[in-house]
Amino acid sequence: MLPKLTELQFAVDVAMGRKPGTLLLKNARLANVFSLEIQETHILLAGSLVAGVSKDFAQAQADEVLDLNGHYVVPGLIDGHLHIESSMVAPAEYASAVVPRGVTGCVADPHEIGNVSGVPGIEWMLQASENLPLEVWLAVPSSVPSTPLETSGAELNLRSIERVLQHPRVAGVAELMSFPAILAADPTELSKVLLAEEARKLPEGHAPTLMGRTLQAYLASGINSDHESTVLQEGREKLESGCYLMIREGSVTRDLEALVSLLQPRFGDRVGLVTDDRLPHDLLEEGGVDFLVRKAIALGADPIYTIRAASLNTALHYRLNRRGAVAAGYQADFSIMDDLAKFKPSAVYQRGKKVAEFAQVLGGLHGYTLSDAVRDTVRLPELSPESLQIAASEQARAIRPVPGGVLTQEVLIKPTVQDGQAVADPSRDLAKLVCFERHGRKGGIGVGLVTGFGIRAGAMAGTVAHDHHNLLAVGISDSDIVVAAKRLEQLGGGLVAVKDGQVLAELPLPIAGLLSDQPLHRVREMLDALHRASSSLGVNIPDPYMVLSFLGLAVIPELRLTDKGLVDVRKGELVPLAVG
Amino acid sequence: MLPKLTELQFAVDVAMGRKPGTLLLKNARLANVFSLEIQETHILLAGSLVAGVSKDFAQAQADEVLDLNGHYVVPGLIDGHLHIESSMVAPAEYASAVVPRGVTGCVADPHEIGNVSGVPGIEWMLQASENLPLEVWLAVPSSVPSTPLETSGAELNLRSIERVLQHPRVAGVAELMSFPAILAADPTELSKVLLAEEARKLPEGHAPTLMGRTLQAYLASGINSDHESTVLQEGREKLESGCYLMIREGSVTRDLEALVSLLQPRFGDRVGLVTDDRLPHDLLEEGGVDFLVRKAIALGADPIYTIRAASLNTALHYRLNRRGAVAAGYQADFSIMDDLAKFKPSAVYQRGKKVAEFAQVLGGLHGYTLSDAVRDTVRLPELSPESLQIAASEQARAIRPVPGGVLTQEVLIKPTVQDGQAVADPSRDLAKLVCFERHGRKGGIGVGLVTGFGIRAGAMAGTVAHDHHNLLAVGISDSDIVVAAKRLEQLGGGLVAVKDGQVLAELPLPIAGLLSDQPLHRVREMLDALHRASSSLGVNIPDPYMVLSFLGLAVIPELRLTDKGLVDVRKGELVPLAVG
Repeated sequence: MLPKLTELQFAVDVAMGRKPGTLLLKNARLANVFSLEIQETHILLAGSLVAGVSKDFAQAQADEVLDLNGHYVVPGLIDGHLHIESSMVAPAEYASAVVPRGVTGCVADPHEIGNVSGVPGIEWMLQASENLPLEVWLAVPSSVPSTPLETSGAELNLRSIERVLQHPRVAGVAELMSFPAILAADPTELSKVLLAEEARKLPEGHAPTLMGRTLQAYLASGINSDHESTVLQEGREKLESGCYLMIREGSVTRDLEALVSLLQPRFGDRVGLVTDDRLPHDLLEEGGVDFLVRKAIALGADPIYTIRAASLNTALHYRLNRRGAVAAGYQADFSIMDDLAKFKPSAVYQRGKKVAEFAQVLGGLHGYTLSDAVRDTVRLPELSPESLQIAASEQARAIRPVPGGVLTQEVLIKPTVQDGQAVADPSRDLAKLVCFERHGRKGGIGVGLVTGFGIRAGAMAGTVAHDHHNLLAVGISDSDIVVAAKRLEQLGGGLVAVKDGQVLAELPLPIAGLLSDQPLHRVREMLDALHRASSSLGVNIPDPYMVLSFLGLAVIPELRLTDKGLVDVRKGELVPLAVG
Repeated sequence: MLPKLTELQFAVDVAMGRKPGTLLLKNARLANVFSLEIQETHILLAGSLVAGVSKDFAQAQADEVLDLNGHYVVPGLIDGHLHIESSMVAPAEYASAVVPRGVTGCVADPHEIGNVSGVPGIEWMLQASENLPLEVWLAVPSSVPSTPLETSGAELNLRSIERVLQHPRVAGVAELMSFPAILAADPTELSKVLLAEEARKLPEGHAPTLMGRTLQAYLASGINSDHESTVLQEGREKLESGCYLMIREGSVTRDLEALVSLLQPRFGDRVGLVTDDRLPHDLLEEGGVDFLVRKAIALGADPIYTIRAASLNTALHYRLNRRGAVAAGYQADFSIMDDLAKFKPSAVYQRGKKVAEFAQVLGGLHGYTLSDAVRDTVRLPELSPESLQIAASEQARAIRPVPGGVLTQEVLIKPTVQDGQAVADPSRDLAKLVCFERHGRKGGIGVGLVTGFGIRAGAMAGTVAHDHHNLLAVGISDSDIVVAAKRLEQLGGGLVAVKDGQVLAELPLPIAGLLSDQPLHRVREMLDALHRASSSLGVNIPDPYMVLSFLGLAVIPELRLTDKGLVDVRKGELVPLAVG
């Protein structure tokens, strides 16, 4: 992470003119994130570092001289908070998607891999994100498992967090999302804040909707950032309260338009831009944090300050030395473009080398190897014919996903009964929802009912299931649900659609059951095929696999299903399926 | 440095209303350094921490409730770079001087003690600055000794620097002042930058007059701050080049008026305020970094941004968690005042306790003990009758201090000769200048000639002699010079004026020969007496002891005297007194 002494010496020698530089960018228009002005200047590189930015370098010697003739040079963008897992591809593939767009760094929270594979999974992410054209820092997941009401693949205790924090490429403790525990002054949660501070790193916040007294109580812990603001007043109050405000525009939640007026130069280093979650098609169509820059400028934000919020501010916040600007002594990460508002780089440089040109990554694929920690992670419990049965009752709870978000509602229904069992009933849009513990940890099989998918036959299933990432299936036919689950076990994880015992479409996710080993465009094609297949089953909601993936999330109201059974999130406890 | 877990729990409990706070400040007008606005609000404390800042706390329970009725609450100021030694008092006395003015923290470079006593001296500074109402962080001196052309009391090598950097109250490596060595890509100097970065701390800059190519080369090392800008164009260029710009207003150098236009909210976290050197009378009359705030506001700077530059910005730059603002989770360091422009606190709080009221420190003196490292540090070499003699020559070099700064000139003179020796000659304003090695390290005695003091009889001498802090004396009478030196050896260091073998006035500085063990006002009285005494010797320049203290500074042009002899600073070498 730190440059070598010889690199520093070379940079100084080049700036002084004792040695030729490696690249001279003449007649650049630099988006200067310190002065917030366009600076017409020359930029001299010394290997991986910027030797200097000055008109004095007009005649500087360099191995390569490029006359930019007034094209813009922009610091490499750094995404301040995201989950690479949302893209369903490995870090190398993720890099290939965003680097050509001018993104050269990110701070990723491997929350999903952490839930499946624990510290070894995080170590795999560190290994698989080495030496990419995208510099990847991690934040160590703070909340694994999210609740005691689920069986996750691993636990991260204080000792694990402390150990992972020592890695030079770990920037902090990731989003401390158990805000009720923080507000309860829970010693374990507060200790995570102190562990980050002891390591001189950052404790990241996650405080959706908190304002007034509860916001103050959350911040009293010492957590001083947040990326969950959705309305202006909330964002404004957090900023005023000392929060480093990350404005998020993900796939699931989009907050930029509401908060863009807080992108003001007078707030200096206090505002950053993050993507949080970007699904494959959004990543391909819109991009990563570059999309936020484009959109913010289109919404009227100051272009150079917007760029600062997506580069220098992130680096300052996470204390990433020599990152986030094009200036002497900084790592030479930048892109070249002819229009800041369009933000379409013609070339991207990282560590002084051209890594992308005309929207394509250069240099071929970046290899990685799979460790045992993330391979063959799907191990189902023993299935018996009774495993998926629901005893008949007068009244039962069913889950209904609320359209357009990740909330669910509990609805009470009178089950359709056959042979003494409550069964799926397509005529009433009533399907079975099953959560199979899939980490080989002797967990259970939770069975429930769901309404709102429109599914009329077969089953769909996936091993992406926040936050425990067990195997979730929704279906009309018990036997198709079992076929789907067994197929995913064979694949080592993925998404699948099944009808009449036949696989209609599938997306293998062999890395921890979360990530594909294929390129992003292939993932998208397979997802498209899955969406067509689920439509053929009658499913009539957008992004049904994403909706499915949130039905096990036992920290967001109202009713969820884990391998332990139905969870009433408001009460924070397991509840029976039958009522009364 | 970090709060305890129980303190965090208490803060959260108080914010949530589960426990009463320790102090509620109602109806405060908070200078909010995040929003850069005045916030009308209530502030609730939980022991050493701020539990929260919100109108929601109007009815909060607290052990003590103070209705501020619209008075301002301002974050405790943090001086970003200073040498406590310039005040000539121990850290506890320094704290007593600045805390009542609203200063609750500082980053001090113990460069002078480091030169005299090395690591043990720095450790003494750490010990002597513990548990004060002023929180003192140190930066480890980077350049001890300053040159090989002098005998200092100690050396700080890379290993020492690395070790001192581990201390939690050490914030970085102090001003890397050997900029010619940096520009020469000297591996030892560049290694100091890397040591700071490895410790996740700061490498502090010192780049007077550098601009253009040489500035870029200096910054290419990774040093990214500077407090030596004296003109607007220089400050502007440094800021634009990524330097964290510290605007300095010391006693010796005053740059605020030239640079005040860079105190702009749009520069966010990039500008700070520092005092560097404040002599006793300036500290008493004008204050510490509070003086800069007052003066900047008077010069038209935005008051809240100016306060931010002297509080939050310093904390952010040095990564001082929970410092620099009044906000939930922050340490409760602040002052109360009725006028931001006048900046005269009626009360100052640190760690939630009132530590000063109406310009007086509360709670009595803060004790400290002297370690062997800083006691009895004056040990002169053997003196013989010939020690101070200068052989006659046709032409000789003399030092002339340039009025109003720290520069000197070399002037060539024909010496006045008596009995085959060149002698002092008051009729020509020609005095002897002697530098006695005083660290007991078997160094030498340098003898030279000086013009410009106006001294007509006797001698004046001191053990404050940048940067090696040997014993410098200027005088007409060799025997009075010897009396002065011997008196300082008896005192363990200090300043003295002697005539006809009698001490006219003296200021004992028993701590490393640099600091008094008396209160600041006593030091000033003794300094005043010394100035009267030196006037009685004919000395006709302002602050003659300060001028004397810089005559050995072998890093600033032109001609200096160390214990090794005359130094031609431009050539970086020793030169003989006689010419031709």
